[in-house]
Formats: sequence, structure tokens, C-alpha cells
Amino acid sequence: MKDTYKYLRTNIKGLSAYVPGEQPRDSSFIKLNTNENPYPPSKRVISKIKQAVNRDLRLYPDPIFKNLRKRISNIYKIDYNQIIIGNGSDELLDMIMKAFVGKKDKVVCTYPTYNLYKVLSSVYEANLVEIESNEDFQIPIDKLIDANGHVTFLCNPNTPTGIFTDISAIRKLCDNVKGVVVVDEAYVDFARGNCLELIKGYENLIVLRTLSKSFSLAGARIGIGFGSLIPFLYKVKDSYNVNRISLVAAEAALDDILYAEANIKRIINLRSYLTNCLKKLEFQVYPSEANFILIKTRHAYNLYKYLKDKKILVRYFNQRRLKDKLRITIGKKGEMDLLINAIKDYLKGVCDGKD
Amino acid sequence: MKDTYKYLRTNIKGLSAYVPGEQPRDSSFIKLNTNENPYPPSKRVISKIKQAVNRDLRLYPDPIFKNLRKRISNIYKIDYNQIIIGNGSDELLDMIMKAFVGKKDKVVCTYPTYNLYKVLSSVYEANLVEIESNEDFQIPIDKLIDANGHVTFLCNPNTPTGIFTDISAIRKLCDNVKGVVVVDEAYVDFARGNCLELIKGYENLIVLRTLSKSFSLAGARIGIGFGSLIPFLYKVKDSYNVNRISLVAAEAALDDILYAEANIKRIINLRSYLTNCLKKLEFQVYPSEANFILIKTRHAYNLYKYLKDKKILVRYFNQRRLKDKLRITIGKKGEMDLLINAIKDYLKGVCDGKD
Repeated sequence: MKDTYKYLRTNIKGLSAYVPGEQPRDSSFIKLNTNENPYPPSKRVISKIKQAVNRDLRLYPDPIFKNLRKRISNIYKIDYNQIIIGNGSDELLDMIMKAFVGKKDKVVCTYPTYNLYKVLSSVYEANLVEIESNEDFQIPIDKLIDANGHVTFLCNPNTPTGIFTDISAIRKLCDNVKGVVVVDEAYVDFARGNCLELIKGYENLIVLRTLSKSFSLAGARIGIGFGSLIPFLYKVKDSYNVNRISLVAAEAALDDILYAEANIKRIINLRSYLTNCLKKLEFQVYPSEANFILIKTRHAYNLYKYLKDKKILVRYFNQRRLKDKLRITIGKKGEMDLLINAIKDYLKGVCDGKD
Repeated sequence: MKDTYKYLRTNIKGLSAYVPGEQPRDSSFIKLNTNENPYPPSKRVISKIKQAVNRDLRLYPDPIFKNLRKRISNIYKIDYNQIIIGNGSDELLDMIMKAFVGKKDKVVCTYPTYNLYKVLSSVYEANLVEIESNEDFQIPIDKLIDANGHVTFLCNPNTPTGIFTDISAIRKLCDNVKGVVVVDEAYVDFARGNCLELIKGYENLIVLRTLSKSFSLAGARIGIGFGSLIPFLYKVKDSYNVNRISLVAAEAALDDILYAEANIKRIINLRSYLTNCLKKLEFQVYPSEANFILIKTRHAYNLYKYLKDKKILVRYFNQRRLKDKLRITIGKKGEMDLLINAIKDYLKGVCDGKD
């Protein structure tokens, strides 16, 4: 195997193979580590998806997603031609690199943020500039503007921090950089605003959404891209990049948007509940507008391990600025209470010299 | 919109946006244009897929496809670590480019062949060398060897010709090029042999399969990659590149492999039937080992249009060496008879001065 490294591109050698987030098969785990929605898709959605499982699976899916795009166009009031669907928004990020980023072009993102921007920059041999967020993880928009990327990626709300960047700041960013601005709104349905309206005013803005979080469809892999530059992405996309069943799943989920909105409301309420409880326990909790919270604790790694032993999975990031933090997905009320009790139990042991 | 071209990479400007193959919604069309299987997945497969449509759709899929890879490993007798799953084999081709092809690296393929090799070479700014196939569309292996690509793509059986390249020739290719050899076996289940055994002997060989054709699952987008170099592809793949339902669909289809094999046999028989009928009508038919045939006819475009008017779709390629050819997917017996009768009707009109 060692010898086969000679076939590999130099810039890929340094990349590590994907280490999957813990996805235990044991369903007794409380999974608060990958920002999935604790509520399942509605029964109506499940039933419509089942109907799509039929003999037509022998046929290729619609390569240009006509039905789904029409629905999205109606709901979000964006021109049909400015909409594209990806096999998750991860695939849309890849298409953006293909269309706009040549070797050594400058890609700008923040730190910390979603790791894929950095990975893709390596793959495409871009010149990556990471702009450090402030101590409270606010994004210093002026520094992003000064960096003036060929492509700038901004995750909003950001992960793993949950911090929301004001739309006025994003407007300023679009106004002042010459390149493409990609606002990754994977978590935006849990926030106080979004960028979709800016698309009409800024030809250089691409907005990405996903049905993985707010629509409870992480298993179906559906990302949506919006913007004036979207027609270019059709030049570089795989012919049949989204399968038949996921297309139907997306249509069904959007038809039942009230169900998703009700879940979003519950999750936002539970986010407040968890935040308040943890603040009472003296944790520093960053103000999140996503379906997770980031907390600061000197016990981060040990607490992560302790919770895992108790069959509660949260996310620990072994990287700069995050080693004393934990990211916790908002789950159901019962799950939040079990988590809080487990944390209390952990804290009880702390001064017993056990930690 | 014109103005937005400034954002686009130079090498992408020349690419045309994907023009979808005709996928009529009107199901009264006989679809012989995109090499789908005329037989649906088995009832057992459909029923297992339906079971996977449940509340777990809220959860991400298994990023490393454990269950599916174990099944594939058992069936094809290939090491678990030398197997990867793609969102169609199109995605696997993209991963191969990412892992092995840097700017200006030499990519070799044949002409004519599957168009995506060329498109990806443009996207990744590779130096593409197309080796012309012989007049009868046989692949001149020695010329592929002389070209000595950093990566060589060989579609076997080839599309749109149906021509099968002997395994001994592929062995010679792997023996004599320094780079990676990718044998795209999308259609190989309809042929007399395949390359999978060579994987143990050649570290530079990657074999690609798909469940789109022989397993009647074009709608689910499942590609499989095999080879010693596969672990490198995990470095560049999207985290969750295959959705939950397609993973289950693939498992179910492989569990019911006898059903697929029976369909393959029927398709091979119908390929002989159609070939013989068209030969009797004096068409030149290239010897196909795929689920389609290529015929030569001076009437190619007009016949394509005529058949379309009769609601029979076949594939016309408006490109060099193919303008006097039609590619016809093998359909059910009744569909083949309707096609043959329509062609006869067309020929009747030819000498009436109507053509």
C-alpha cells in the first residue's frame, strides 16, 4: 500500500480519510453530535416517499429537477433558473469550487467553521486564507472584505459556534468584495434572519440551504443552491446527481412546510431551555441561532467521555480554540433533561478528586 | 448575466450546461435512449426499500457503507477495504480525478466513448489525449499503452459502440502503463467477461460498476468502485455521499441477484433478436456486449426523428463518427417488435421520395 502513494496527487497526500462522526447502530444512544433533527419527517412525507418506491426506480431521475425547482421557486420566490439541487449541500460546495476556483485562486473562510471549505481548498489547490473570528466567535466582516477572496465562504449561523452574522454585514461583504460570496445557510431556519432576499441585488451571492436539519431529512441528502450564478453550476454538475426518491422526499417535505416550522419552533424553545439550564450551572454558553449550542468548559474532553459512557453523544473537536468547548445538538425535551442530569452528575464528582 | 462570466473559470466557460437526455413524462413513450433496464426491480427489492422509508430518514446515512460493503465483499470476493460506493459511478469518476489528476496531468481515453471522461478532464484542467478507436470501433490497446496516461479511462463494453475489449488486452494495458487504469464496467454484466479478477494482480487498476443497468436501479444512483487504490478515494469523498434509501436499495438488489441475472439473460437474448432482425433489414450492426446496440444507417437522423414521432426514443449523437449511427437500448420483446415494425414502415417510405 505504501508504494501506491506514488499515484496520489501531492496535495491529497496530506488529507486524512474521512473519519465518520460517531453513528452508533445502538439506537439507545442519545445522539446530540451531528445536528440532526430530533423529530422525524411527518407521516404525510413518509407516505409520499413510499409511493415513489416503485417500478420507476429502473429509470434515471430528472436531471434538472423540474418539479422540485418549481415548488422551491414558489415557496421562496426565487427565479426557477436561479435554483439548483445537490446531493446534500456538500455537493453544491464542490460544484462551486469546480466552477469558480482555479489553482492558486484565493479562497477565504473564517476560523473556526465548517471543515469542508478547507478540505475542498486543498483538493482544488486554492490559496486558502482563514480569517480568525473574534474571541466571542463574532465574524469580523471587515477582515473578510480586506481579504477580498475570489470565493468567500461564510457559514451563517456558523458551525460549531452557532453565531449569527447580521444580514447588514453580509450585504456589506457582497458590496465590497470582487469575487463570489457563498453564504452557507444550513442552519438558518433556526435563526432570526436570512440572506435569500439579497440574491436579487447581488449577482455575486450564492445562498445554500439544506433539508437535512430543519426538514428532518439528513438521510435523503438534499441541498439547495440559489443565486444569479447558479446556471454556471449546471455546467459542472453530474448528469443525474440527485436520485428519484430524494427528489420526491424534498417535494413532500416542502409541501408540508408547516410541520417543519412547528418543529423549528420547538427546537428554538428547547435551545433556550438548555442554554438557561447550562448557564445556571455556570457554563459559558455562546448565543446560538442554530439547532445546537456551543459551551465552554475546562472539562470538555472528560465531560464528552463521561457523557458517552452514559450513552449521550455530544461533539468534541480536537482543534485549536475548541479543545475547551463542546457542541451539543438540541434534542427532544426528555433528551435535554437526561443530558442536564448527566452533566450535574458529572459535576458532582468533580470536586471528589475523581476528575 | 453576460457580465457574470467574469466570475467563471476560463476552462469552464467552454463547457455547455448539461443537456438532459430526453426523459419524457409521457409514459406512453418507448424509451430506448438512455440504456435503462426495461424490467423493474423485483417486488422483494421494492418492499425492502419501502421499509427503509421511515423516521430514521432524519439521521445521516452511514458514511462508510459498512453493511453494503460487506455484502459486496462477499458476493464479488474483493477485500472490504478495496470497495467504495458512489452516488452513481459518475461520482466515482470525479473522486478519481480529485485523487489522481493534477493540472496538466495526462488523461487518456478512447474516442468515441462516455463523454464524462472528457468533461472531467476539462474541469480538472488535465491534458486529455483521445485515442481513436479502429474503423470497427475496436480499441487499439497498443496506442493506449504508448500514450502512457497518468490516468487511463477505458469503458468496457464501450458506449455508444457496445464493443468489448478482451481482458487479455486490459491485462497488457495494466502491465505497461505507469499510471492508473480505470475500467468502467457499467455494462459488463451483459458481456462475456470482466476485469474484477485482475484487481488482485494490479495495484494500478480501478474497476467501476453500477447498479443502474443490470440491477434496474438507475433511479437510485449507486456506483461501486473496486481496487487497491480505493482507500485514497475515501480521502476526497463527501462525508455522506450516498443517501440512506439508496444504500438499502443496493443491499436489497444484491440480495436478489438471481432476479437481476434472469433479466440480464433475457436482455442478451433480445439483443440477439434485435441484431438479427436489423441485419436482415441490411443495417450494419456492431457486435454489442452491452444492453444496447449501435447501428450504422445513412438515415440516422431522419430515422431518429421518425421514431420519435412514433413515440419511440432512440439515441442520436451529433458528433464525429456517430452522425450516421443510432444507439438503441434493448427493451422488452414487445417494444423491440414495435421498433422493428416502425423501422420497416420508415424504410417503406424511403424510396417514395418522401425521405
